[in-house]
Amino acid sequence: MALEVGKIEVSSEQRSLMPILSPGKRARLHRLLYEFGPGHGTLLLLPIDQGIEHGPRDFFPNPASKDPDYQFRLAAEAGYSALACGYGMASKYFPDYAGRIPLLLKLNSKTDIPPADEALSPCNASVEDAVRLGADAVGYTLYVGSPKQEEDFVQLGHVREDCDRFGMPLVIWAYPRGREIEKKGGRDSLFAIDYAARVAMEMGADVVKLNMPKLNADKDRDAPAPYNEMDVSLSEAIRHCVESAGRSLVVLSGGSKVDDDKLLEQTRLIMEAGGSGVIFGRNVWQREWGQALSIIEQIKETLAKSRRRTP
Amino acid sequence: MALEVGKIEVSSEQRSLMPILSPGKRARLHRLLYEFGPGHGTLLLLPIDQGIEHGPRDFFPNPASKDPDYQFRLAAEAGYSALACGYGMASKYFPDYAGRIPLLLKLNSKTDIPPADEALSPCNASVEDAVRLGADAVGYTLYVGSPKQEEDFVQLGHVREDCDRFGMPLVIWAYPRGREIEKKGGRDSLFAIDYAARVAMEMGADVVKLNMPKLNADKDRDAPAPYNEMDVSLSEAIRHCVESAGRSLVVLSGGSKVDDDKLLEQTRLIMEAGGSGVIFGRNVWQREWGQALSIIEQIKETLAKSRRRTP
Amino acid sequence: MALEVGKIEVSSEQRSLMPILSPGKRARLHRLLYEFGPGHGTLLLLPIDQGIEHGPRDFFPNPASKDPDYQFRLAAEAGYSALACGYGMASKYFPDYAGRIPLLLKLNSKTDIPPADEALSPCNASVEDAVRLGADAVGYTLYVGSPKQEEDFVQLGHVREDCDRFGMPLVIWAYPRGREIEKKGGRDSLFAIDYAARVAMEMGADVVKLNMPKLNADKDRDAPAPYNEMDVSLSEAIRHCVESAGRSLVVLSGGSKVDDDKLLEQTRLIMEAGGSGVIFGRNVWQREWGQALSIIEQIKETLAKSRRRTP
Amino acid sequence: MALEVGKIEVSSEQRSLMPILSPGKRARLHRLLYEFGPGHGTLLLLPIDQGIEHGPRDFFPNPASKDPDYQFRLAAEAGYSALACGYGMASKYFPDYAGRIPLLLKLNSKTDIPPADEALSPCNASVEDAVRLGADAVGYTLYVGSPKQEEDFVQLGHVREDCDRFGMPLVIWAYPRGREIEKKGGRDSLFAIDYAARVAMEMGADVVKLNMPKLNADKDRDAPAPYNEMDVSLSEAIRHCVESAGRSLVVLSGGSKVDDDKLLEQTRLIMEAGGSGVIFGRNVWQREWGQALSIIEQIKETLAKSRRRTP
Amino acid sequence: MALEVGKIEVSSEQRSLMPILSPGKRARLHRLLYEFGPGHGTLLLLPIDQGIEHGPRDFFPNPASKDPDYQFRLAAEAGYSALACGYGMASKYFPDYAGRIPLLLKLNSKTDIPPADEALSPCNASVEDAVRLGADAVGYTLYVGSPKQEEDFVQLGHVREDCDRFGMPLVIWAYPRGREIEKKGGRDSLFAIDYAARVAMEMGADVVKLNMPKLNADKDRDAPAPYNEMDVSLSEAIRHCVESAGRSLVVLSGGSKVDDDKLLEQTRLIMEAGGSGVIFGRNVWQREWGQALSIIEQIKETLAKSRRRTP
Repeated sequence: MALEVGKIEVSSEQRSLMPILSPGKRARLHRLLYEFGPGHGTLLLLPIDQGIEHGPRDFFPNPASKDPDYQFRLAAEAGYSALACGYGMASKYFPDYAGRIPLLLKLNSKTDIPPADEALSPCNASVEDAVRLGADAVGYTLYVGSPKQEEDFVQLGHVREDCDRFGMPLVIWAYPRGREIEKKGGRDSLFAIDYAARVAMEMGADVVKLNMPKLNADKDRDAPAPYNEMDVSLSEAIRHCVESAGRSLVVLSGGSKVDDDKLLEQTRLIMEAGGSGVIFGRNVWQREWGQALSIIEQIKETLAKSRRRTP
Repeated sequence: MALEVGKIEVSSEQRSLMPILSPGKRARLHRLLYEFGPGHGTLLLLPIDQGIEHGPRDFFPNPASKDPDYQFRLAAEAGYSALACGYGMASKYFPDYAGRIPLLLKLNSKTDIPPADEALSPCNASVEDAVRLGADAVGYTLYVGSPKQEEDFVQLGHVREDCDRFGMPLVIWAYPRGREIEKKGGRDSLFAIDYAARVAMEMGADVVKLNMPKLNADKDRDAPAPYNEMDVSLSEAIRHCVESAGRSLVVLSGGSKVDDDKLLEQTRLIMEAGGSGVIFGRNVWQREWGQALSIIEQIKETLAKSRRRTP
Repeated sequence: MALEVGKIEVSSEQRSLMPILSPGKRARLHRLLYEFGPGHGTLLLLPIDQGIEHGPRDFFPNPASKDPDYQFRLAAEAGYSALACGYGMASKYFPDYAGRIPLLLKLNSKTDIPPADEALSPCNASVEDAVRLGADAVGYTLYVGSPKQEEDFVQLGHVREDCDRFGMPLVIWAYPRGREIEKKGGRDSLFAIDYAARVAMEMGADVVKLNMPKLNADKDRDAPAPYNEMDVSLSEAIRHCVESAGRSLVVLSGGSKVDDDKLLEQTRLIMEAGGSGVIFGRNVWQREWGQALSIIEQIKETLAKSRRRTP
Repeated sequence: MALEVGKIEVSSEQRSLMPILSPGKRARLHRLLYEFGPGHGTLLLLPIDQGIEHGPRDFFPNPASKDPDYQFRLAAEAGYSALACGYGMASKYFPDYAGRIPLLLKLNSKTDIPPADEALSPCNASVEDAVRLGADAVGYTLYVGSPKQEEDFVQLGHVREDCDRFGMPLVIWAYPRGREIEKKGGRDSLFAIDYAARVAMEMGADVVKLNMPKLNADKDRDAPAPYNEMDVSLSEAIRHCVESAGRSLVVLSGGSKVDDDKLLEQTRLIMEAGGSGVIFGRNVWQREWGQALSIIEQIKETLAKSRRRTP
Repeated sequence: MALEVGKIEVSSEQRSLMPILSPGKRARLHRLLYEFGPGHGTLLLLPIDQGIEHGPRDFFPNPASKDPDYQFRLAAEAGYSALACGYGMASKYFPDYAGRIPLLLKLNSKTDIPPADEALSPCNASVEDAVRLGADAVGYTLYVGSPKQEEDFVQLGHVREDCDRFGMPLVIWAYPRGREIEKKGGRDSLFAIDYAARVAMEMGADVVKLNMPKLNADKDRDAPAPYNEMDVSLSEAIRHCVESAGRSLVVLSGGSKVDDDKLLEQTRLIMEAGGSGVIFGRNVWQREWGQALSIIEQIKETLAKSRRRTP
């Protein structure tokens, strides 16, 4: 039973989430998994919260993307499972698309102007707002490992309670963050992402949004044992994180724009690892309309081909 | 400007409801009108509240119908816009169908054991229950003209307020009822149904469920002027009621089982009058499976052919 | 100081209301008195609650009036001070006119199907609804003298409290009603209307809506002394009622359709008696568009010519 | 499709309740069905609310039974699934048995001193009381068909909502009652019991407590069609009622003391009809200790032998 | 698709806000845009919160301006869209002007005595206060990028929720502030103002109040890429900020007194960039009465000539 350093055995099968969800969560999540988007139990989510998280500069590569209608139209016409945004955008642009694309209301957010060493993302909207808008899920950014985790956990606890009260699926953006995580290999290490995946599940996530771990032997040396000496492939690493999330579904987030092959390769990896889909923002809407549709088509094909899990 | 007795002029066009609804109501109602059921802005609703309203005897003609799973399966497989039932049934049978058929949660109901001369249908569930279950609409039975209208209006007012708070569409079963309505031509008279349609709209209904008026010169003589001397066809009568409901959508309810031709004729009449669909219960599920599917198919065709209104 | 039977002395001047109102009530009422409608401190209100109070038959003389948009358009285009209607109509038709015509939200209503001997008009909406809709006043029907006055006073008390909390002007439809008032000369007697005017003021009305008293020596004999022996002109009678309302503004309501001369004469009488305006429904919208505009123009002229009071 | 009078076809299989219950309800109900009492998914409940429902005279046949400790000890030592009683008894006697016998807290009750023609059983305790006491279920008496059903349904609706909120199983004593039910064949007719079973399920019961119907051709003639001409055996009748309760579990209640053979025969009938157990009070504790233990043993054997249903 | 440094393409057309607002917000905002002030969908706002934000010294250049009646009178007589002030001034001076000038109640404010490196403006009034006073909008100062953004976002979230509840338009003073923003080019940089505009929209602003960006190649070098190397005209810069605010209307704030040509030039720039108006305080009321009226007249002409946007 001792751990053989550098090897992680992964169980071959993941338990399904849907049968144990309350009917409200099940009805809503079913829409994302089966009625909209690529279907077949997969998730293709379009996030548009970069304007507040990073500022308008993310829209410069494709000026059309500055108008939020661009992302709403893209999500509706290209066939996404849902569009994820904050209250301001939802209240101003969702009315034109109500019923045509499911809404995942992001409840908290922050700017990147103050440093992230004590990161906390404060709520500016509630689960009841999400209900009133007709959203099918809510999103919450949890900064795992931040010195402000005390406030974060309490705040998330209240959101989770309201999700239960209203039958609303809870999607957690599980992001390792803060000065302490930087001391232990950094926010992209397997240690950090793996821990974040587990914390999100332990806090009640129905869906966990994870970044792809970056294996970096140098930096990983600062991580706690046995992560400091682990020798795993990227595929094994991501599979490990997915398993840490247990019954919670996992979607992979993209980050800044990468080339197409890498994007599709990441999609394949998360799905083969037992993930349920992807949430790519800039990688999609920083392209002009035709090119965006083309990469979305390829992502959908990859989701379909590589899916392993029954949600 | 004087009223020419026996003639009602009806306006030719109805205003659309969807553009003025809040995004939550719009997102939810869109599912019923376009994503499920026959679509194209029509409503095909399956009610299963007869077990409480009339007792189990309604299930005797088709014993399989006693198991609520029969109606849920029928609604999901034959492709309904939504299934309408009370909390007990929703909590026990909807979990198996969450996401596969929209739920219209009926909030109030009563037995038919006490006499209906002072009818009132008390709420046993709340709009928040509907939210938690993942329902897409709520239903409320309003007994228009009952001596207990004071309690009824107050109770409905609170339901309506919660519908606004949560973005939940409100369907009103607008039923003339009580000893006073019986003195004025009865619950099926044009006077009574027409009044009920208007009251439902004035109370905030998004959708109004009406019975087909029955023209009966004898009984109508007791109705207030000018209904006591009106000479209208059934088609004009139903069109009149639909117009009284204004921007609220109208669905026609069926009542006890009638022959197929009459059922389809009623479907055609309501749609040509500017209605949005039908809600037939016993006329459908008192048939065994194959026959039920067959009549549903014919109803759907009639809905498609006869629709006039943009919801 | 003893009362000389058959003579009522009336004070020559009425105290102004506006200077003692809270700023919220003043800002809102100012819009009705000066920014919209005929202005100069007068009120021209268009009520459209007859569909629930009497049923759709009131629309038969002018079928176009069945579509509530008719009344909204009339109020906006002919230049009314405000349109008065219930929640259902406000939520479905006001969005198209928000900002173009002030809204007076009627909070309670009933059908006329059950007998009126124990009349009570139950609330189906709240002052907070009025605030959310952007209304500038609320309306409440008080059945003065009804055996159910206990419930009525308590219900009105809560409405009045909310009006104070939100700075919302309160308009009371002060209607004598019920079997006891019928025993004492009836709902139209000077005794009844005069009493109703005072009760409305005593309950906190900012504006009181009164019917024109009908002098009928026969029926008045059943009224309490000295009304049973009073000998007053109609002009004196209405002036008496206006004074009973004290600082509350008074508007005269119309009732069923009468000829133009009578309508304008009533308008003149209420204004000369110190009233602030009129609220005529059927007398206006039971006319086709052009005729409605024409009578409105004449009413406005009469209001301007006959006004005496600074509100 | 016409109903053949006198024959009801019943489906052969009943759907399980446990898989669709929330975890809290499931954990608590599991204790009654499997950890305490005869187990194997059956229920043996001991009610002791006769002191308030009928008065102390029910204790006269066995004076020891007047001390509530008698019933608590019996339930604990003879191995019941739960003991059902009101708040006063629970607060005074359950402390000695907490953990040794599950508590089913009865929330409402009444005396039999006023006549039952407008029966209503008012709540004197709450679901939160039940949580605080450590109860594993709550009980509610619903008087189906009573003229006071309006108050009853509203009251039960609130109890049911609290049961959902706290994950507390809801047991409904479904009793036809009131002057109207007496006009239609009486409280023990198949019509009445069958209707009551369905109403309890529709109101959200997890477990329904029913009386055995009494077939009486004479009285049944007053029941609505087709009950007025039905020709069924007692076995068919009870099976019919169990099916009307759908997914809700059914337990048979006993009533006044009958001979042993009849008691065991009733036990067999309910179990073969798909019921889940029995709730006999006077039939058990009106016996002295040794005789009580003996009949309990025989009931348990019958439950084990005759059970058909997976709860 | 790569970003060409120094060029931002801007879309030529902005989406309208009014059609997607709730009726309450629409009715109130309509008053500011069309009923008062210069009209035609433009906003001319008079702020008088400098007494708390900077202290009485701002009144020294024009001693008459120290009496708040000066600004109220100016706003009413010169024809502003609204006057913006805090609760104290509103409660003391608005009563004299209620109905004559719309009130924009500023909910939060601070003194400039403590340093602004961790700026936060605490609420001293509520949206309900605004409702009670009869205000037509509320104002909130958001310090974008401040280390206290966590508290700021939560506080604003509650204000925004109340605005939705009461149908009250929300005007956000979007001010970059705090030590971190100073490290990145300062509060007046295009980076800072552009980010602030977007954040305000994402937080739910109906109207965003922005300062004019100041282009300063030296300081901008500290801003994040690509702002550190951007080469834009002032006209392009302001147009960029207006677009970042999306559907939210934008008004330009003035700051300390500048010469007339500059003021009118700024007015022209904001309107041609798609802005909806200006909010100039000291630039107006630091002038004596006649001069103030004269510059207001010129601003109004400029607003009328330069407007591009349908609000």
